[in-house]
Amino acid sequence: MSSRPEQTPFEFPVSAMAGRLEAPVIADLMHQALANPDLLSLAAGFTDNDVLPVDLVRDTVDRLTGGDGEAAVLQYGTNRGRQDLREATLAFLRTYPGETLPGLDLDSAMVTNGSQQALYAAMQVLCDPGDLVLVEQPSYFVFLEMLKGLGIRPVGMPCLPEGGLDLELLDPFFAELARSRAIDRVRAVYLMGYHGNPTGRSVTAAEKEALAASLRAHGRGWPIIEDAAYRDLYFDEPHPVPSVLSLPAYAGFPCLYLGTYTKPFATGLKVGYALSSHVGLLDKMACVKGHQDFGTAHFNQAIVANILIRGLYPEFLAGLHRKYGAKARLLQSVLEGEGVAEAGWRWHPPAGGLLIWMRGPDGLDARMSGAFCRASIDAGVLYVPGDLCLAGGEPVHCLRLSFGTLRESRLEEAGYRFGRIARQYAGEPATTAFPAGAIVH
Amino acid sequence: MSSRPEQTPFEFPVSAMAGRLEAPVIADLMHQALANPDLLSLAAGFTDNDVLPVDLVRDTVDRLTGGDGEAAVLQYGTNRGRQDLREATLAFLRTYPGETLPGLDLDSAMVTNGSQQALYAAMQVLCDPGDLVLVEQPSYFVFLEMLKGLGIRPVGMPCLPEGGLDLELLDPFFAELARSRAIDRVRAVYLMGYHGNPTGRSVTAAEKEALAASLRAHGRGWPIIEDAAYRDLYFDEPHPVPSVLSLPAYAGFPCLYLGTYTKPFATGLKVGYALSSHVGLLDKMACVKGHQDFGTAHFNQAIVANILIRGLYPEFLAGLHRKYGAKARLLQSVLEGEGVAEAGWRWHPPAGGLLIWMRGPDGLDARMSGAFCRASIDAGVLYVPGDLCLAGGEPVHCLRLSFGTLRESRLEEAGYRFGRIARQYAGEPATTAFPAGAIVH
Repeated sequence: MSSRPEQTPFEFPVSAMAGRLEAPVIADLMHQALANPDLLSLAAGFTDNDVLPVDLVRDTVDRLTGGDGEAAVLQYGTNRGRQDLREATLAFLRTYPGETLPGLDLDSAMVTNGSQQALYAAMQVLCDPGDLVLVEQPSYFVFLEMLKGLGIRPVGMPCLPEGGLDLELLDPFFAELARSRAIDRVRAVYLMGYHGNPTGRSVTAAEKEALAASLRAHGRGWPIIEDAAYRDLYFDEPHPVPSVLSLPAYAGFPCLYLGTYTKPFATGLKVGYALSSHVGLLDKMACVKGHQDFGTAHFNQAIVANILIRGLYPEFLAGLHRKYGAKARLLQSVLEGEGVAEAGWRWHPPAGGLLIWMRGPDGLDARMSGAFCRASIDAGVLYVPGDLCLAGGEPVHCLRLSFGTLRESRLEEAGYRFGRIARQYAGEPATTAFPAGAIVH
Repeated sequence: MSSRPEQTPFEFPVSAMAGRLEAPVIADLMHQALANPDLLSLAAGFTDNDVLPVDLVRDTVDRLTGGDGEAAVLQYGTNRGRQDLREATLAFLRTYPGETLPGLDLDSAMVTNGSQQALYAAMQVLCDPGDLVLVEQPSYFVFLEMLKGLGIRPVGMPCLPEGGLDLELLDPFFAELARSRAIDRVRAVYLMGYHGNPTGRSVTAAEKEALAASLRAHGRGWPIIEDAAYRDLYFDEPHPVPSVLSLPAYAGFPCLYLGTYTKPFATGLKVGYALSSHVGLLDKMACVKGHQDFGTAHFNQAIVANILIRGLYPEFLAGLHRKYGAKARLLQSVLEGEGVAEAGWRWHPPAGGLLIWMRGPDGLDARMSGAFCRASIDAGVLYVPGDLCLAGGEPVHCLRLSFGTLRESRLEEAGYRFGRIARQYAGEPATTAFPAGAIVH
C-alpha cells in the first residue's frame, strides 16, 4: 500500500479484500454536492428532517433517565440485543397482513446497527470470495458494492423493464444456470420485498410464489434474504404480501428477514434487526457481530423499545405516511407538468418508500460519465445513475430519484431542473430489457 | 449447515469463515451467571452504573433537541463521522503528556461503533486467512477470538511473567521469526498501551522504544495497532508515555490508534474511534465501514461531541478516576486480607483500567474445565480464565478479575469468596514463563 512518503516510508501488504475495496462511486457525486451548495440532491437516500421524531426521542430519553437505577440504559447490553426490543419488533411485524411469523421467537431475532450490518454479516457467513448471490435487476447499489468488497458476484435474475421478476423467464433462467457450473457457487437469493431500493416497487405474491416454485422445481433450497428496510414506509396501505418468513411457499427455506427503524423512524439512532427461520444461521451471524462490536448501542435500543412498548410507533408512522405520500405525488406532478413523460421517461408510481426509479428514453446514457449527468449537475440537480444498481452495469438509461430529504419547495425546484434536462435529452421510450445472468467480474 | 429439521429441510453451504466461528467460550460463564443470580461476576468487563453520565447525557439530549432545526441530530451522518467529534477527539488526546500527534488532522480520524469495530476493520484490511499478527502475552481475549473467526493466527511476543515485553528476548525472538517462513505472513503488531485488557498494565517507554528498534533492526515496518480503550481510565495520573502516533521511535511506521468513549464515559452510546498516521490505511477501513453500516449512529456522536466541546469530559473523568481507583484498592485489600498472596498468588497493582491480572500458584489449572473454576462457581464468584488471553492457551494458572461493575459491598463479598477458594488451592508462587511464538492453529 502506498503512503504519505514523508510519514511512512514503510510499504506493507494488504489483504485480498483491501485490494477490492474502493471508495463508493457515489462519493464523487457527494463531493460535487458539497462543492456547490445550490445543488439540489435527488440522489441522497436521507430521510426528511421534518418528520424525524425529535420530541418523542427527547421525551423518551427523559423517561428512561429520570428515575433511580436507570443508569442501566447507559450500560452495555447483550450481543443479540434487548429482549424487550426483539419481542416488540416481532409483535409489531405480526400486525402486518398475513405476517404470522410461524415458529419465530426471541432466539430468531438479533438487533443490529441498521439492517445493513445484518446484511454484511449474512454475506460473511454464507459466502466465500468467488461465490454468487442472485439479485433482482435493478438492486440495492450499496449491496452490490458490498459484494464487490467481499469478492462475491451478483447474478441478476430476469426482470421486466417495468419492474418485477419476469415470471416467464424464471424457469428458463434456472434451467440455464443449472447447466453452468456457476450454479454450485450460488449461496443466497437477495430480494427487496417492500418499496425497494432503487425501484420503490414491492414484490407481488405471484412473484414470490413463482420464485419459490422455481427454486423447489430445481431442488435449490438456497437461503432467501428479504431486505425490508422500506416496509414501514407505505403511503396508504401496507403492501398486502407477507414476508418470506410467513409465506407457506417458503416453508423449508432458510429465510433471513432484515428490518430497520432507521429509514422509517429515528434515523440517527441506527437500530435495525435481523430475523431468521434458521437459528443456526442467526447464531453464526451473532458470532460475527460479537467480533465486530458485541452489541448495538444499548441506549438506542432502549429508546426504540420504550416507544414501541408504549404503542407510539404506529401513530408516528401515520404522520410519516402522509408526509412521504404527499412528497412522492408532488415530485411526480412536477415531472408530469414538465413533460418528462413526453420526453420519453417512464416510471412506476411508488406506493411507499423514498424513491422513484426512472427509465429514460432509448439511447440515453445516464451514467456519471455521460453528458446527461453533467448537464444535470450543471443545472443543479443530482441523481443516482441506474447502472450502479444493475449487476452487469447495463442498461445505462435509468436513474434513481429520492424525494425523501428535500423540503417541498426545494423538491419542486429539483423537479423543474430535472424536467428541463429531460426535455433537452428527449427521445422515444426505451424498450431495453434488463439482462438476466449478468455477472460483475 | 444443520437446521431445525421441521422448519428447514434444506441444507446449505456456509463460508469458510462460518466454519471457524464459535460462540464465545465466555458465553458459557455468562449462562452460569444467569442461572444463578447469587453468583458475583468478577468476569464481566462492564462499567459501574454509579458513574455512568446519566444526567449529563439527558441534559445534552435536551440541548441538542430543544431548538428549531435541531432534527439534524436524528438524521444520517457521514461514514467517517462528525467533523466536530473528530476535531474534539484530536484536541482531547493532545492534552495527554507528549501526545503531539504530528501530521494528524481530520482525515486521520474515523468514528466507529466502539473501538472494536475499528479493530475488526483493520484486520479485514490488513490480513488474509493464514496471516499472522504479533500480540502481547497475555492479550485481549475478544481480539484473539476475532482473529480465529477471520482465520488469522496470533503470535505471542516474549513477555515477562510479571508483565511487559521481555526486552532481552525481543531481538532473539525476531531473529528466530526471520529464520522461519512464517515471518512473511506477519501483517501487524497489536499492543494495548494503557491499562490493557487483561493485565491492567501500561506499556513503558522502554518497551515501546525497544520494540520499534527491534523492528527497524530487522527491517520490518509492519503496521502497529495500539488499542487504547482503557487509556482515559487512569486512577491518579495519566500514563506518561505517548502513543505510537507521537513517539519518534515509530516515525515511518503505519500506526493505527484505537480509542473509545465506551469504557470511560457513556458505555451505552458505543462511540469509539480510529486514528491513523497512514491515510491510505484509514481510507480502506472506511470502505469496510461503508459496507458494514455507513456511519456510526449520528445521534450518539452528536451527544459525545457536544459534551467534549463544552469541556465537560475531563471533569467527568476526574470523578471516574476516584471511583475506579477506590474500587481497585478495595478489591486488592480484600484479597490481601484474605491471604491470597500467601496462597501463592501474585498481581501487578493496576494504575488504571478495570482489571487485575492474577497469577496463581504453581500447578494451578484455572481453566473453565478445571476444579478451581468449578469451585469458584460453586462458591458464587466468576472470573475470566487466563488461558483465553494467551495466544497458545498456556500457561493455565492465571485469571482476570474485573472490579468495574460490582458495587462496593458486592465487590468485597466477591473478594472474600475468591479468597476462600484461593486458600483451598494454595501453593507456591509460579515461576512459569510466558511462551513466545505460540501459534494457535
